[in-house]
Amino acid sequence: MAMQHLDPSDPVTGPVTADALAAYLRAQATEFLRALRAGREAGDGGPPARARTRAGENGSEESADAALALRRSARRISGTLHTYRPLLDADWSEGMRPELAWLSGTLGREHAYAARLDRLVTALNRLSGAASFSAQSGAASSAGDAAKGSLTVGAAKAGALLERQLTLARTRAHSAALQALGSSRFHAVADSVAVLASEVPLAPAAATADLRPLARAAHERLCDAVSGLPLITAGHPYNAEALIHGLSPDPAPHPQDAPWHQVRLLLRLHRYAREVLRGKDAPVDVRLLTAGQALNRHRDASEAAAAAASAARTPRIAPATAYALGVLHADQRHEVEAARFGFQQAWQKEAVSTR
Amino acid sequence: MAMQHLDPSDPVTGPVTADALAAYLRAQATEFLRALRAGREAGDGGPPARARTRAGENGSEESADAALALRRSARRISGTLHTYRPLLDADWSEGMRPELAWLSGTLGREHAYAARLDRLVTALNRLSGAASFSAQSGAASSAGDAAKGSLTVGAAKAGALLERQLTLARTRAHSAALQALGSSRFHAVADSVAVLASEVPLAPAAATADLRPLARAAHERLCDAVSGLPLITAGHPYNAEALIHGLSPDPAPHPQDAPWHQVRLLLRLHRYAREVLRGKDAPVDVRLLTAGQALNRHRDASEAAAAAASAARTPRIAPATAYALGVLHADQRHEVEAARFGFQQAWQKEAVSTR
Repeated sequence: MAMQHLDPSDPVTGPVTADALAAYLRAQATEFLRALRAGREAGDGGPPARARTRAGENGSEESADAALALRRSARRISGTLHTYRPLLDADWSEGMRPELAWLSGTLGREHAYAARLDRLVTALNRLSGAASFSAQSGAASSAGDAAKGSLTVGAAKAGALLERQLTLARTRAHSAALQALGSSRFHAVADSVAVLASEVPLAPAAATADLRPLARAAHERLCDAVSGLPLITAGHPYNAEALIHGLSPDPAPHPQDAPWHQVRLLLRLHRYAREVLRGKDAPVDVRLLTAGQALNRHRDASEAAAAAASAARTPRIAPATAYALGVLHADQRHEVEAARFGFQQAWQKEAVSTR
Repeated sequence: MAMQHLDPSDPVTGPVTADALAAYLRAQATEFLRALRAGREAGDGGPPARARTRAGENGSEESADAALALRRSARRISGTLHTYRPLLDADWSEGMRPELAWLSGTLGREHAYAARLDRLVTALNRLSGAASFSAQSGAASSAGDAAKGSLTVGAAKAGALLERQLTLARTRAHSAALQALGSSRFHAVADSVAVLASEVPLAPAAATADLRPLARAAHERLCDAVSGLPLITAGHPYNAEALIHGLSPDPAPHPQDAPWHQVRLLLRLHRYAREVLRGKDAPVDVRLLTAGQALNRHRDASEAAAAAASAARTPRIAPATAYALGVLHADQRHEVEAARFGFQQAWQKEAVSTR
């Protein structure tokens, strides 16, 4: 397992005081406020990304970047509140976390739908032997081009169906995000973060505390969860595990994916806990990064596969459309399996020191 | 490439005379005649396997075994005539090979359809999370049970459709095989083999010949063909190559599979050429065996994927059926990719001596 290599307190030789925690939270709060300002200046009502079809508008691109930055710091603040909970004012910290989660969830949805459509359309093109041009164009335009080009009728119709469904979902997510950004709930979060940027509400225990045991606990939670994953199976290529239940009558998301999603969250918490100890200029652990990317890919492919399966349940679709969606679903489930293999490979690798 | 390890003449220290060739051909011809007798004694009209649903009938099982044995020796005789052609009477040898190929092809088809159905129904069960019971029952009954059990409507209908189509094909193949076995063309082949069992028609050149250069040439043809395969790609798990064109408008079998099928045939010729040199009691080269099994699996999965795609083009099927066939097609194309990975792993492995 090479647990010692992942230990976040490893390179930190002495105790780390609560000053580091306060400095990290202040820096993240400052990032949050900067992203919020950038989103407002982009001037289209708020940070969320507009539809990819309008990617030419600079305002939308800037506001998409701002939304990413906002979510990035919201996740870090929330994760830090969780890992170092005993050192922070309990009432304040427990009140703030769900609000940050709500914000980050609401702002992330539009981007997620756009990325899912992009992934599925790219896969449809690849499956039709037309991979080369899909990489250059956005999701919407490549689906259109592909229909004219070398896609079968089924693949083109499947692409159009997915585009319709995911664009609708994305538009709804965009409206929800705009509404959220204008809400009093959002203003309360922004106010709390503004306070955090100047004054971190520490608990009395923080005065004499060492951060390292709490960071170590986050790392142990990660290792425990990883040890529950079927890594031996995942390390055998083409184990065909991810597509088991691919045709099961249960329309729910694959239950086998849940422990991997959980490890993804714990890996992120571990990474943030490490950032607090080492400061934001510390070198990136390539192994952690690779493992995290594999788990992101796992999550994305899992959700894309579910979207293809769900589109196939649309009433009155043509058999050719359904066939293409079946191929696409299986393709994405194999991406899930490939991502697990990738995680297994990254995790078992001896950590190469980047220091 | 470790070519030297594969060299069939490697363990054979001195020249090998045409006596070995004649002995090998006589032995295979004797096997052929024994299988023919066994098939006739099984007494249901000829060697071909009956439908799996009647596997309880001993006569059918025996005649299936006899058909396998007949094809086994026909392939070996034909391959040997090819590799050692310069040492054999040219007219006789060139007249005999197409007849053996015809026989072996005609007798193999019924078994191939039965195996294909079995593979597809097993995959449907696995994809429905019902893999455990499909292994125990034959193709026909497991499709039936699964329909009652945990298969979705789509998977059950896809299984029923495949069973209908492949059973029809198998029945036709069975009739064709019976007809072939009663034909004068077959009796001519059997007569030629009977002659071969006592008297191998060698060419004058055979008197002073060494078999090893001809065996080496067969080995070189194999190595040349393998060096044309995309083995670097195949060695990267989850390269997603096999499903490219999975949705392409071209309904023809995947052209990317052809070089692998060709290597499969050349590997077989090399194996038979080796048997001639070493005698039939020589130890099996595990590496060659594993590589050959991977290529068999490649061929089977390729054809099963094509059968699923072809079934999906049946007019008026339900979208749920088409979806299940799409998942199944992609699953079998991933089996194709897995088989290529397996071949690459076997081929690159240093040959472990079994002597």
